[in-house]
Parts: sequence; C-alpha cells; structure tokens
Amino acid sequence: MRTIYSLLFATLACTCVRAQTPTFSFLSDEQNEFVASEIQRLTLKQKAGQMTQVAVDLVFEGQTYVLTVPPVFSEEKLNHVIGEQEIGSILNVPSRSIPTPAEYREYIGKIQEKAMATTGVPVIYGQDAVHGANYVKGSTLYAQPLGVAASFNTELATELARITAYELKAASIPWNFSPAMDVGRHPAWPRTWESFGEDTYVNQQFGLAMLHGYQGDGISGKDNVVACLKHFTGYGAPASGRDRTPAYLPERQLREHYLPQFQAAIDSGAITIMINSGEINGVPVHTSKELLTDILRNEMGFEGLLVSDWQDVRYLYERHKVASNLKEAVRMAIGAGMDMSMTAVTTEFPDVVVELVQEGELSESRIDTSVARILAVKVALGLYEKNVWDPEEFPDFGGERFARKALQSAEEAIVLLKNDGLPLPIAADQRILVVGPTADNMRSLNGGWTYSWQGQEADRYLEDFHTIREAIQRQFPGRVTYASGASFDTLQDVTTAVSLARESDIIVLCVGELSYTEDPGNINSLVLPLAQRTLFDELHQVGKPIVLVMAAGRPRLMTGLANRSKAVLFAPYPGPRGGEAIASILSGRINPSGRLPLTYPRHTNALVQYDHKPTEARNGTYNPLFEFGYGLSYTDFVYSDLSVSSRVMNPNDTMEISVRVTNEGQRAGKHSVLLYTSDLVASVTPSVKRLRKFTKIHLEPGENQIVTFNLMPRDISFVGRDNRAITEPGTFRISIGELTAEFDYEPE
Amino acid sequence: MRTIYSLLFATLACTCVRAQTPTFSFLSDEQNEFVASEIQRLTLKQKAGQMTQVAVDLVFEGQTYVLTVPPVFSEEKLNHVIGEQEIGSILNVPSRSIPTPAEYREYIGKIQEKAMATTGVPVIYGQDAVHGANYVKGSTLYAQPLGVAASFNTELATELARITAYELKAASIPWNFSPAMDVGRHPAWPRTWESFGEDTYVNQQFGLAMLHGYQGDGISGKDNVVACLKHFTGYGAPASGRDRTPAYLPERQLREHYLPQFQAAIDSGAITIMINSGEINGVPVHTSKELLTDILRNEMGFEGLLVSDWQDVRYLYERHKVASNLKEAVRMAIGAGMDMSMTAVTTEFPDVVVELVQEGELSESRIDTSVARILAVKVALGLYEKNVWDPEEFPDFGGERFARKALQSAEEAIVLLKNDGLPLPIAADQRILVVGPTADNMRSLNGGWTYSWQGQEADRYLEDFHTIREAIQRQFPGRVTYASGASFDTLQDVTTAVSLARESDIIVLCVGELSYTEDPGNINSLVLPLAQRTLFDELHQVGKPIVLVMAAGRPRLMTGLANRSKAVLFAPYPGPRGGEAIASILSGRINPSGRLPLTYPRHTNALVQYDHKPTEARNGTYNPLFEFGYGLSYTDFVYSDLSVSSRVMNPNDTMEISVRVTNEGQRAGKHSVLLYTSDLVASVTPSVKRLRKFTKIHLEPGENQIVTFNLMPRDISFVGRDNRAITEPGTFRISIGELTAEFDYEPE
Repeated sequence: MRTIYSLLFATLACTCVRAQTPTFSFLSDEQNEFVASEIQRLTLKQKAGQMTQVAVDLVFEGQTYVLTVPPVFSEEKLNHVIGEQEIGSILNVPSRSIPTPAEYREYIGKIQEKAMATTGVPVIYGQDAVHGANYVKGSTLYAQPLGVAASFNTELATELARITAYELKAASIPWNFSPAMDVGRHPAWPRTWESFGEDTYVNQQFGLAMLHGYQGDGISGKDNVVACLKHFTGYGAPASGRDRTPAYLPERQLREHYLPQFQAAIDSGAITIMINSGEINGVPVHTSKELLTDILRNEMGFEGLLVSDWQDVRYLYERHKVASNLKEAVRMAIGAGMDMSMTAVTTEFPDVVVELVQEGELSESRIDTSVARILAVKVALGLYEKNVWDPEEFPDFGGERFARKALQSAEEAIVLLKNDGLPLPIAADQRILVVGPTADNMRSLNGGWTYSWQGQEADRYLEDFHTIREAIQRQFPGRVTYASGASFDTLQDVTTAVSLARESDIIVLCVGELSYTEDPGNINSLVLPLAQRTLFDELHQVGKPIVLVMAAGRPRLMTGLANRSKAVLFAPYPGPRGGEAIASILSGRINPSGRLPLTYPRHTNALVQYDHKPTEARNGTYNPLFEFGYGLSYTDFVYSDLSVSSRVMNPNDTMEISVRVTNEGQRAGKHSVLLYTSDLVASVTPSVKRLRKFTKIHLEPGENQIVTFNLMPRDISFVGRDNRAITEPGTFRISIGELTAEFDYEPE
Repeated sequence: MRTIYSLLFATLACTCVRAQTPTFSFLSDEQNEFVASEIQRLTLKQKAGQMTQVAVDLVFEGQTYVLTVPPVFSEEKLNHVIGEQEIGSILNVPSRSIPTPAEYREYIGKIQEKAMATTGVPVIYGQDAVHGANYVKGSTLYAQPLGVAASFNTELATELARITAYELKAASIPWNFSPAMDVGRHPAWPRTWESFGEDTYVNQQFGLAMLHGYQGDGISGKDNVVACLKHFTGYGAPASGRDRTPAYLPERQLREHYLPQFQAAIDSGAITIMINSGEINGVPVHTSKELLTDILRNEMGFEGLLVSDWQDVRYLYERHKVASNLKEAVRMAIGAGMDMSMTAVTTEFPDVVVELVQEGELSESRIDTSVARILAVKVALGLYEKNVWDPEEFPDFGGERFARKALQSAEEAIVLLKNDGLPLPIAADQRILVVGPTADNMRSLNGGWTYSWQGQEADRYLEDFHTIREAIQRQFPGRVTYASGASFDTLQDVTTAVSLARESDIIVLCVGELSYTEDPGNINSLVLPLAQRTLFDELHQVGKPIVLVMAAGRPRLMTGLANRSKAVLFAPYPGPRGGEAIASILSGRINPSGRLPLTYPRHTNALVQYDHKPTEARNGTYNPLFEFGYGLSYTDFVYSDLSVSSRVMNPNDTMEISVRVTNEGQRAGKHSVLLYTSDLVASVTPSVKRLRKFTKIHLEPGENQIVTFNLMPRDISFVGRDNRAITEPGTFRISIGELTAEFDYEPE
C-alpha cells in the first residue's frame, strides 16, 4: 500500500508542479521544458539550496571577511556549502585577495564540478563589478557610475560595460550586480556616486546603456554576462541621508522617480534584479508584496530572478524589527516575492525553507516558482553547458584597447565648473604647486568597490597608475612642487605648503574625499572637514590663483572655496586614469566636456534638486552653487535656430525638435545637448523643468551641427492624482540652453 | 407666465435647498432651522460674500500693509467691502498699529453695524493670537507654543488659552486662529516654534488643552472664543525645511503623525480649521478633495468651517501652478471642500463664485453647504445677538493675575540642558558679564506674531518688560556688566566684551535668533552665524566659565559652543517675561523644569527625531546633542517602583502603570514624568520609542509621590500596512526614565 500511495502522490505532485512551473519568454520552449523537468528532479532541500547565495569566503580556509593571504581553497568547506547544503549561488571575491582570471577559473571550476556532481545544477556566480571587473586582478577599471553619468555619453557607457562583461567572463563570472539605477536624491547618501545622479531619466538612459553593454546581443554569448538591476527600489532617497535608513515615498513620487528606469530595463531584457535593503514608508522592501509582486511582477511584467541584498533577510529581525526570528523573516521575504537570499555568511537558509514548507508556512509550489526563475537564468546563460571559461580565450583582457576607453571615461567624467579669467589651461611655463589631501592618492579617484568593498587599498593595487600629483608632474616636467598640506581631516605641515605656494605661479588644490561606500561612508555634514578649509584659507592668503579640484563621490560643500578659486573641477571618481585626465585638462591636452549629473548645493540645509516644484523656486529656496547639467568647456558652444516641428502635439504625434550647435571658439570639443521641458500648469504641481532628451556631439572650431530630438506625448507625461501616468492638455515649454519654444498638447 | 415660472422655480429651489442644508450637532434644532432659513434668505452674491475673508486693512484709508499711523477708518472702503461685496469675515490687525480693546470695539462695531444693515449677517472677526492676544494693546503675552510645550504642563496651557480668549473678547474678537497642531518635523522650518514640537502626541495634548482654554464650556460664553485648528495637515514637514514648500507624506505616515491630533480636537468640539498652505505629494492641500472632504469630512467627521490660509486660493495659480487663473483656482478649492477663502487683500472672490455658479461650474447647493457651515459658527458664537463687547466688561484684561500665569509660562518654558560642576545657580557675589546678540532685546524672547507678523517691533511695544540683561541686572544688582559683542550676524566691539569678561567671574553669553515667521524666517543652514561663534571663541579664550543661553525659535546648532560651556539654557521664545524667568533661573529663585519638545541636533545633516526607526538607531545615525524630553533641574528626581498592573493586556483592558518619584535633592521643584512605549516587533517597522503619556508634578525636598498612568490598547496602536490603526499582539516595553517594564498585548 505504502508504495502505491507514494507513487500516486508523486504523480499528483508532478502534474501539479508541471502545471504551475512558470515559463519564460526569454527561453525557448525546449529550455522551458528543461526548467520544468529540473524542478521535478530536484529534492525540496536542493530547491531550497538553489534559493541561497553565499559569499565565496565560505569555501576558503580561515574566517569569513579575514581569509589568509593568499586564500586557501577548502574542499571540506566546499563539501558543506555545495555537498551538504546544496547551495546554488556564490558571490563576491575571497576577502583580502584579488584573484587573477586563472585563479578564478580554478576556484570556480572546483565549485562547479562539485555542484554538477551533487545536484547536477551549475552554480551562478555573481559580483559587484561596478566600474570594471573591480575584483579581478589586472582588469580595466574606469570611472564610477556618477562619473560615467557626468559624461552624458551613453555610447561610451555601453562600451565600458562591454569591457566589464568581457573581463568578468575571462574570470568565469557570468553575473554582474550592475547597473545601479538608484536615483541619488540625498547628496549626503554614501552611494550617491554609485548612482547616475539625481535624475530618473539619466539613470534610466545610463542603466539601459550599461545593460546593453553587459548583455550584448544575448547573455549566452561568450563575451556577455547577465546584468542585475539594483536596488529595487527607492534606495537612493533615505530621509536621513545615511545608508539603509528609511525612505518615505508617496506612491505618486515612487512611480514618478523610482519605477520608470526599472520598467525600461525590464522591457529591454533585464532578467535579474536586486532588492533595496532599505524600508519605504515603514515597510522593509524585502517584505513588500506590494512592491515585489503586485508592482514588479504583475504590473511591470518582470519574469526573472529577484535576489536579496547582503544578509537582508536576517536583517528583517536583526535591524528592521518586523520579524521575531529568522524563520519569520524567511517566510516574509519569500512571501513577498524574493527568489534568492544573499545570506552571504551563513548557510542555514535551505534548512529554514525546508522547515517552512514542511510546516505548511510556505507552499512547495511557491518554492518551485522561485527555483524556476533561478534555473531559467542559469539556462539562459548556458551554464549547464559551460560554466567556466579559459582565460586564454580573452586576449583583450586588461589590454590597451580597453585602457583607451577607460581613459576616455575619466576625461569625460570631469566637470569644469569655473574658469574665471581663464587660468585654465595652465601655460607650460607656469610653476605649479600641487597640494591637498586628494592630490596624491588613488582612493580619491576610485572610490569604493575598488579591489575591496571600501577601496582602501587602491594605492597598493593601482601603483602603476598616476595620482593627480604624478600626472601633473609628467605633463609639466620640472615645473611642479608638491606638499600634502592636509590629510582628509588633519593639517599636515601647512608651513611647507604655504612657502611652496609663494614660489609658485598657480596652486592646484585638491580637496574632497577618500574612498567609501555604504555605512562606512555615512557623514553628519556635507561640509568639508575643517582641515581642508583651513588649508584653503592659508593658501588663499598667499594670493596666487587657485585651481580647486574637488575629488569626491558626492557634492561636499565648497561654496566659500569655489568663490575664492579661479577655476574649479569636479572629479566624481574618474577611476585609475583620473589623475592623467585631470592633468590633461589642466594642461589643455583635453577639452573638458563633463556636466553635473546632480545639483551641487550651496548650503548645508538647502538641498533642493533641479526638478523641484514651483514653490521651491521662490525666495531663494532653490539656489545651488552649480545647477544640474552645468559644465564648461575651453571652447564656446552656441545654440541657435531652435525649432519645433509643430506648435501642437496630438496623441500619436512625434514632435521633432532641432537646434543648431556651433563651436564658436578656437578648440575642438565635445558637447552634450540637454533638452528640458516644462509643463506650465498641471493637476499635480509640475517640476519647473525635467530633462527629457540628451545627446553628445563633437565639433571642430567653427563647425556647426543641427541636433534633432524626437519628443512624444509619453515623454511629457507625469504621474497624476490617480497615481497613473497622464499627458495633460496644455502648454509646454522646451528649453535647450537659453533658447525656449512652446507647444500645446491637445488630446483632441 | 414669467411670474408663474419664477414662483414655481423659487418654490422648487427652496425645497431643494432646505433638503440639502446640513444640520450641525453643535447647534440646537432651532439654531439649525435658523441657519437653513438664512440660506434661503440670502442672495447668491451674499452667500458668496459669506465665503470671503479679507484683512481689516481693507476698511482703512491708505495702502494695504502700510496704513497710516494711527489708522483712519474708511466708511467708503467699508461700503465697498461690506456694502457692495457683502463680505462676511474680517481678519488681522490694521497694519502698523496695535489697537486697544476700545479701538477694536469702535472699528468692529462699525463693521458689524454695516453688515447687519446690509446682509443682516454679522461678520466673524478672526486673528492669529498665538501667545496671548498679540495684536491687542495692553494684552498679556506669554510663551510661544514651543515654549508652552517645553513646560509639559497642559493645565498651564489651558489657563493661558483662557487668558487669550478673555482678552480677545475684550477687543470684540471672537475667533482665534490657534492652536497650531503642526508637528514640526524639520528643525529648520521657520514655524517650528509655532508648533508644540516634533511629537504628535505632545501636539495633540497641548492642542486639546488650548482648545479647551479658548472655547471654555461653550463658545457662546462671554469669556470664550472659537478656536481654529491649523494647519490641516502636514504643514510642519516641508522636505526643504522652508516654509510653504512641498512635503512628501505617504498615507501611512500622514495617518500616523498628522491626523490624530486633528481627530482628537474635532472630537473635543473644534468647529473651525485652517488649511495647510503647502502641497503634499504634489497636490496643494487647498485642492485636495481626498484630504479636505474624503478624510476630514467623511472619515473624521468634521462638521465645521474650513478656511483657507492667506491668499492661498490665488497662490494655486500664482505659485503652485495647478490652475491657470483665479476662476479655476476657486473652482478647485471649493470643489475640494474649502468653505471660506482668506483672500486677505482682494475682494473679487464673491464675484468669481457667482460667475462659477452661473456658468454651472459650481452648484449653488455646494455654496449653500459652505455658507451653512459659516453661519453655523456665527450662530454658535451668538454673533447674531451680540457681536461687539464693552471692554469695561473685562476688568482682568492685562492684569496682575494674568501676568503671573504669563511669567509661569516663561519659567516653565526654559530648559536647562547642561550644568557641569554646578555653575548654576550663580552665587550672589559673582561678577557677571552678560553678553551676546540675544541678551538685550525683546525679539529674541518673543518671536513673530508679537505686535506684528515678524515681531520686529517688540522692543518698542514691550519697553516695560525686561530683557535678559535688564533682568539679570535687577537680580544681581551692582554685579553685572554688559556688552553686545555681536549683533545677530556681525561682531560688535569684541574687545570690550573680552576685557569685561576678564573682570568677571562668569559669562552669560546669549546667542540665538531674533524674531521671524514664515518665509522671512527661512534659513539655509542650522549653523549659527559666524559672528556668534566667533564671539564665543573669543570669550572662551578668557577662561571664565560660560553659561550659554540659546534664545531661539528652533534648534540652531550649538554643538561646539555647548561642549565648551559649563551650563546651557534653551529659551524657546518664553515671551515678554522671559528675561525675568531666565534671570530667576540663573539666580536660583526658580528651579528650572522645562524639557525639550524636540530633538536638538548635533550636526547639520543628521536630523533624526526621537521616534526614529530601528535602522536609524544604528551606527550613530541618531546621535543628537540633546534628546527629546531632556531637561535638568536643580534638585534630583529619582524614579523607583515602576509597576504595571498586569503582565498581559487584553483588548478591553486599561493597564495601570505607576512609578514613584522622589525628590532626593535639596530644593523643591516641578518635574514632568514622561512615559514611553516600545513595540519590540511590528509588521510596520516600529519607532524605537513613542511618548504615550506625561504629567507634571511638584515635590518638596524629600517628598515622594506615586504617579499613575492608564494605558489602553489604542495608546499602543500604530498605522499598519493597510493604513488602518492596529494594535498588534506582541511584547511592549514601557520606559520611564531608566526604568523599564514589559507586557504582552494579546488580542485573545
């Protein structure tokens, strides 16, 4: 009897599971069939293991976070992680090490071998490669996302992402936790520089550009990886400005600023997403069925794999206090829609899932749904067929062709904010003092996620690259002196700095920040440390012109300093070649073309973004030091002939907007053209303006070009009173530079 | 035929109107009948006039805002405002003047006479009497609301409000635009001091206390006025910190922090409310049918009169850009639920309303509903019977009995924040230097709404009262020297200040703010002006102990100053007797008992309130200079014997919580006992603690008293995931001082 019952039950279960296993539009029928059959084949424990992701530290000897150097692979630990717990995903880099592609090949090879031998399912290995394959030795690092956004060059972004994909695959890593499409809305937020700035459209455009670069024409391609959008959603708006602290986002603003970029990327083939670690309106996003299922799945049509961020399920009870214990937390997160838990440093997750199913707290079909999504991504990547790659197949790894693009990313990331009386470019015969805490280190050029989470060892790993000081010395041989003057927050031999300043013609003072991310990057004030301001004051008294270089990951206040400087550069983590790029701009080899992807505040408690409301335009409420989109060139770009194809737009119209851009200066240069619209009256208070389109061009001296944009009704929509997108009738103003034109939208 | 049709139409219209005229629970049947008959009697234009409120400037000669001194009443203008436009409400004080009660009696008498002769409906006259009848000459002014809240003494608040009601009525003013129940959630907000601080419960308790004081046992009483709650709702949370700029409040937080205090006041008899001038989630509150009708009327059961704030209907198109012109704006505001428009400086509103009705954009029955509410308040006040009062009937006006209460309000408003090594009280033989920009003026003690909107002429009007300097000189005769040292933002003869400091034993340095409110009080930084910080530095170098007095309407940063001071007092606009109160605390005549009704921040960009979420308690995110509820005494109050009546609370239980408070010091003193609860785990991330109860007691040295609080399930509820209040099962922690107890809530 027992056997018969078992058989019967198995048959019923099978039918049931088959019926419920989702199919995926990004898989072939055959692949979908395969996923369904795998779901049937796997035990409950194995499926729970597929939903688990741990740090690679867990398969090395020694303690998590502080492995031996070099790391020693542990077959015994591998046996626990893969053999016993049957865990299906690994992330990160062995702590305190940066493996070569060949070393990754070896480690990952052992992991995959064990996985195939145990469950028959390949492991999916993921990493945060946010500005190049930043955890792979010898890879090509480039500007951080804020710097890439400052380029306003989406083609460049795609090329950079292609490099990352290639170099990750050279290390057998097929999954990249990038792009971050967080809209950085609090300037103190320590991950501001990991976002593409404060504007939703800019985040969307650069997110799409990098998505295309990572995934190429298909994630199964040899040189491609699967991207992971992060962090769904609202991560960049913590009320306190500190990382992983509560955000308060009314539905209307959530839909206006924090969903469109994800929707566009899903529509463009994104199949993995990471969940925001924070809480919105008192609900930790990892427990929000509304966001993760009702909106992301049902409304936005996301089919793929939804992974937690680092330890976030555990944090539901340890930090957020919405669960009393791990089991409750797991039930809540899976119930809300999470597929994979980045447990990171613990391996009990599969056991907890099994218990919850056995106790009837979660259905096995719910587990199957998540596992199907995970397997679908593995199948789409072709991991069942090939899950390690031979570094020899990637001859361009760390090569010159990639280096040129990385240098370009640095050059275009840098924003010239002031150039009064044209102290720049600096003439070749000038005696230059280079000074300041960010002048002679790699941390201030690279930020976090650079060979380690906090990037604090960038100088050791990047010793072949040039700091700002070194690069200036190379371009102005024999004309440069140097003194630090101050560390980040302590004065250092200011006397020497001042006496060197007296003997110089010009002072290049480099201030700003070192490297950081997440919690360690939290600050209590946007004001620069006193030491840096004092150093400025002392040098300013010397009376020589000051070129201020703000090397930082967020807009640290510099109002008093910028006002007394002749020139100001903002260098938002331009990467290892940032020193060279800055020197090239100072010397004039390169004509700067970056523009601010965020508002640079003037005062500590006046933090209003460019797309503010009309009541924030009154009485000096919006009065930044430099506006979003601001950035100077060594040549003069002049706009003329703004024209719109019609004075009226109807629902199915595409309006053509063109403007002539003329390089009236003496130098060739690149220039980004930004098109804003203003809805003059709307049922929800309209932003004073919104960026709707942009493009970047190159013009020789005297050359001109007509730039054309297409604007459609959906481009001028907003989220209305009923929380749905609407394009309302009325008058709209287009502005490009100082030129404006108006048209009426008429829904007939 | 025409006559018959007219008659028929009139009859139909009557029936229709009668049927739709609302009745009011606060009126008798007879009064309701009267309101309904008035609605029938009045013309459309007259009804539109009832919905209009203009500034009293409009019935005086000369220009609005800059009348002649003394003001000259204009029969001609009165004829326009009342005779032609038939306007039903007047507000404010003649600009540049402070009339006596007799003068008000004369002006208002003429207005009422004209109104009765024209429409037969008395005018309702309103004023912002926020800390006493601050626009009536000779009245009794007391601490501003933030100072009253710092007393944590609600009985005192009721007594103060009674004084205001009495003194308003002495001036024939029956309507007071107070209490403001705004929860001041951004410390830079220039109306922080007009709120009862950052906590909803504190705002609710003091709002109720003042409501009861204003309205007494019935608004028709001779000594009572009708209160106007303001500003419905969410006014105190502008994202930018600047006045009348957008707030972003998810429904859950709106319901948790910005509705309960209004609900409690409505349930306690509030029948007029003023609308928040700001916008919430992109919707100007004056156009929010959701807030003004769905929530305020239909859900919260508000029956009364809903008045706009100053010119706010006009601002819908001038500032918010949700309307193209005045007519659209009027339609939106009335459509949303506004009854009366404080057009303030223009008189076209009745004409616009008539046009909208004639054009079918608004129904006359909608107008009737608003007019009924307005008339209902006039009837409830008894204005039809009596609308001016003889000042002779108010013999206590400006008298000694009221003065004692006002002084008490000042004494209890002041918070002793630091007293290291007990420099306070100051011994009688000490030589004292009094110095600083707030030491010798009345503006810094009174704030705005003090004889004028911005309070800038307080010194002229309050010359009979003592500044901090004068009061200290009176209490330490012959021991006090004085130098200003600095104005608000400019150093003034620091040399003299420093040399006087050298000859003194102790320095009382008074820093802070002058007076302001609304837009003119906007700031870009919470940091004190450099001049004040420099003055501190210079004086600190002298090496004498510094007693720092922060006289201000919001928590201007004082971290570096407080850390180097021996003692610190916070004086949140204690009123005209604030100087005397401060001197009495310094001399020891008075034992301080104030406690902070807000969080005093330590850093500019670290603005987290006491009721923050657990993730904001991590890594120094919440690290204020002084916590909400903090305040020292000259004696030692010790808690013991915390007990709860049961370890378990069921739905219908009232839990009794008691604690013994013992005065173990050498002085008698008042002490506020604050009871907090913490919900250890909740489905919406719980605040780390919430204030649930408080009371104030007085103890002689050695005396003890058992204080008992009753806690019910609704007291520990929160707004849940479905945006409805819920009390969830689980463990709760009670804390009073350092003592804690726990209980479980079990819904059976």
